[in-house]
Amino acid sequence: MKALKLGIFGLGTVGSGTMDILTTNGDTIERELGCKIQTNKICVKDLGKKRTIDVDTSMLTTNPDDILKDPDIDIVVEVMGGIDEAKRIVESALNNKKHVVSANKDLVALYGKELTELAKKNNCHFFYEAAVAGGIPILKSLQFALTGNNIKKISGIVNGSTNYILTRMEVEKLSLEEIIEDAKRLGFLEADPSADLEGLDAARKCAILASIGFHSLVTTNQVYVSGITNITLKDIEYALKLGYRIKLLAVAENKEDGIVAKVHPTMLPLDHPLSSVKYELNSVYVEGDMVGETMFYGRGAGALPTGSAVVNDIITIIKRILNGTKPEYAYNLFEQKSVLPIESLDFSYYLRLQFKSGEIEGTRLLKLFEDNNIEIEEINKYSFIENNTNEQIDEFVLVTEPCVEEKFNETIEKLSKLESELRLIRTIRIESGL
Amino acid sequence: MKALKLGIFGLGTVGSGTMDILTTNGDTIERELGCKIQTNKICVKDLGKKRTIDVDTSMLTTNPDDILKDPDIDIVVEVMGGIDEAKRIVESALNNKKHVVSANKDLVALYGKELTELAKKNNCHFFYEAAVAGGIPILKSLQFALTGNNIKKISGIVNGSTNYILTRMEVEKLSLEEIIEDAKRLGFLEADPSADLEGLDAARKCAILASIGFHSLVTTNQVYVSGITNITLKDIEYALKLGYRIKLLAVAENKEDGIVAKVHPTMLPLDHPLSSVKYELNSVYVEGDMVGETMFYGRGAGALPTGSAVVNDIITIIKRILNGTKPEYAYNLFEQKSVLPIESLDFSYYLRLQFKSGEIEGTRLLKLFEDNNIEIEEINKYSFIENNTNEQIDEFVLVTEPCVEEKFNETIEKLSKLESELRLIRTIRIESGL
Repeated sequence: MKALKLGIFGLGTVGSGTMDILTTNGDTIERELGCKIQTNKICVKDLGKKRTIDVDTSMLTTNPDDILKDPDIDIVVEVMGGIDEAKRIVESALNNKKHVVSANKDLVALYGKELTELAKKNNCHFFYEAAVAGGIPILKSLQFALTGNNIKKISGIVNGSTNYILTRMEVEKLSLEEIIEDAKRLGFLEADPSADLEGLDAARKCAILASIGFHSLVTTNQVYVSGITNITLKDIEYALKLGYRIKLLAVAENKEDGIVAKVHPTMLPLDHPLSSVKYELNSVYVEGDMVGETMFYGRGAGALPTGSAVVNDIITIIKRILNGTKPEYAYNLFEQKSVLPIESLDFSYYLRLQFKSGEIEGTRLLKLFEDNNIEIEEINKYSFIENNTNEQIDEFVLVTEPCVEEKFNETIEKLSKLESELRLIRTIRIESGL
Repeated sequence: MKALKLGIFGLGTVGSGTMDILTTNGDTIERELGCKIQTNKICVKDLGKKRTIDVDTSMLTTNPDDILKDPDIDIVVEVMGGIDEAKRIVESALNNKKHVVSANKDLVALYGKELTELAKKNNCHFFYEAAVAGGIPILKSLQFALTGNNIKKISGIVNGSTNYILTRMEVEKLSLEEIIEDAKRLGFLEADPSADLEGLDAARKCAILASIGFHSLVTTNQVYVSGITNITLKDIEYALKLGYRIKLLAVAENKEDGIVAKVHPTMLPLDHPLSSVKYELNSVYVEGDMVGETMFYGRGAGALPTGSAVVNDIITIIKRILNGTKPEYAYNLFEQKSVLPIESLDFSYYLRLQFKSGEIEGTRLLKLFEDNNIEIEEINKYSFIENNTNEQIDEFVLVTEPCVEEKFNETIEKLSKLESELRLIRTIRIESGL
């Protein structure tokens, strides 16, 4: 039986998961493919490091050229992470006519277009299903299974860590800081979780989803990003009372006049399917002009779910090699649309306001907004005793009618000047149009 | 630019949706494929019938041979429905070396294996994404995007009509009969909805999902089927009180000792993702040994969602033709496992019991079950006034611990003989192990 040969870069979580699946399900895969998959070499940083899985240590190397220059190796699997070195390795692999599987969202979000062009030049296959939403086959669905549709909108919970934090805050009624500390302790969060908390990780995935879905290049730096670091338990509770749940949502929308690409805390109606996605689970909601709304749900991280996506890419490439199928690329960028600034978009807003003196009539507050052409859909007043000061705080929670962000920002700025007593506690955008 | 040519059988809902998409999104599809799709002929029963879409009447024919014998036609699209004639047409198309797209679940559930063998013999592509869950790309996900996994279980809400009925019963607090009448009036249900209501439609989809997911042939007649016709509003309400929602669930499970394939009303925990699938929406929950749980959600019926799946199959075939890719078949049946009888499976049961005299102590009832080795997890007593008779009815609602169906049936039969007063109103299986 013919065997295709792999060289793997990286043996961390994803690399170990990949090796685990290739071993455990080797027979099934072989039977399905009619071909063996053989791992020749694994390039690691530290030969002596203790591993979570058993690997034949003779396969390990620290020299990338043992893979890149080995003419026997058909497919390079890049699961090492990072950007610059990973880029050099993927480029070198492609230039050496090796097909590439990557799980690297940072790399694809930054250099997806460039690497696709290099793959095309070398007639190599290039897949990276694991880069977005782990085990969920969302990239292959966009590339292969929803063609025939113009994709209008893609909204996703694509960062498991922040979803885990927001879910635990709601369920356990604890603060962001308390959950973060506990999550670090349990190993659910990295020591430096800022790429997750500040939305950067989700923004990378947003860029990839938009580029593939809309056939128009969107890079990470074009994605508007705002993280969850200022969300408090009180916001979560107020949102629930209003019929919403706060999620860190990545949204890409293909509009007539440009592309929307943004990641920010979003209040989603409780009956929206994405609202019920809990803990570390991921979900991507896709709207096609013909198919309507579809949703894909599953595990976005972890050794086996992510490894499952990597192994599926390997199998996909091998089938294509065996079948003599020409490469097709997810980054099929035949459109060139601009990305719209967040200020040009329409939102309803959730607003939390306090007044220093604690004294203002709701009706006067309403009038302030109306005078500035922002309609208020709902206004609620809550009073509570501040823990630190023992003072009673009166707080207004407002929901606005949709208005353009630029105008909303101007109005808020104007009101802050007009009303020196006014203290804006929080603004959260509401997605009712999902 | 090269053009590939279609011959279409049927211009009902799915055929019209397919034509609509091919026209509306023709440019996008052409740009993606680098090739035109041209519809040469559409075979219909009645040339004079009023159509919901504009088609060039010169394309219409009533003679199948105008398509089957036309050497110009590359792909036959069978969206006419029915079994015997559709089978003859698909067979003839394959024997004439034409690739086939079908949306016909009845046909695939009965003859999927046979037709796949014929397609293989003729080296033709054969896809039928629309046969299960309309626009949701579940068959392609199983065939292409989840490989590398051993699929353990597939559970789905795959019949939109019954899900629509159960949702409306709950939301509007109306009886099954009232909703059915209204749904027929609105055109949501066919004049004879028995294939939906009695679970046969879902059973066909269950057979297809099991065959593809487990690589082992399951045919419709091997699927245990029980429909929703005896579900009442009271059952729905009791279920909610217990923390469950009643869904008509198709479940296929790949066990060590055989395959489970069954369709019946199932009580699902409210926090299970399938529980929140409402109205006519479909959803399929797939458990792989590596990827864990994934879910696919969307519109299971309607001209455009179903047409979207048909058009995606057409595009998939054309890409494969242009790329010179060898055919691969979803029915890749390299396993031969038996289907387990429902009596051999474990369930918890929801039980509704009345006593003719209305007089029995809960403790005595509990003892009756315990003496027969069926543990009761929960028991509730409800009293209500019967509308017709103005009598007060006492009713017990029980939830059992899991036990084998055969033993459960024996016990119920034994109790009915022992206690002549006992009246069993309803039994519904509970899926807590999802």
